[in-house]
Amino acid sequence: MAMEEAKGVVKHVVLAKFKDDVAPERVADLITGYAALVPVIEPMKAFHWGTDVSAENLHQGFTHVFESTFESVEGVAEYVAHPAHVEFANKLLPELEKVVVIDYKPTTIKL
Amino acid sequence: MAMEEAKGVVKHVVLAKFKDDVAPERVADLITGYAALVPVIEPMKAFHWGTDVSAENLHQGFTHVFESTFESVEGVAEYVAHPAHVEFANKLLPELEKVVVIDYKPTTIKL
Repeated sequence: MAMEEAKGVVKHVVLAKFKDDVAPERVADLITGYAALVPVIEPMKAFHWGTDVSAENLHQGFTHVFESTFESVEGVAEYVAHPAHVEFANKLLPELEKVVVIDYKPTTIKL
Repeated sequence: MAMEEAKGVVKHVVLAKFKDDVAPERVADLITGYAALVPVIEPMKAFHWGTDVSAENLHQGFTHVFESTFESVEGVAEYVAHPAHVEFANKLLPELEKVVVIDYKPTTIKL
């Protein structure tokens, strides 16, 4: 097989489950706050999110996906250490019951 | 805030950790087998994958991301029920120590 890696792109994927007592308005505010990092943190190129619409029941209780796009792993590191991200993470994380964060370089396979 | 949902697109995200005794060649074969579903299952429009390159240590042991793209939740349902997917899943799942599967409609926020 031949592999093709999208040049330099790194996807930063967060799966989250908010605590049951977090109000929907607070969830919406936090998601807006997440999106608001894009114009502030230079290496963060895009932000997409959505709620679970799966039917297989393998979502392990996770309800939200947050996907950010970077041009390199160094860009992710710059984002993680950026004061605006640190401040936001300190707001978001206490509202979560559980979270997984994984970064990967999306690669296709030419069959 | 205004939300913009990518029209009809559904991302099917699988986070996986292979069992420790699964050989790298077997992992590579399975990933090729996953990609080989794209030309066989009509609603499956794209497949990307990658291994964890995160530095935050919040990946909870997950080592691989598999991301498939569909045009609708109905398309995902057709994929899930397709014999080629069922056959492949029956090969993949026994090799995994843990797995999360979540589908979402990637949405952006206009600030």
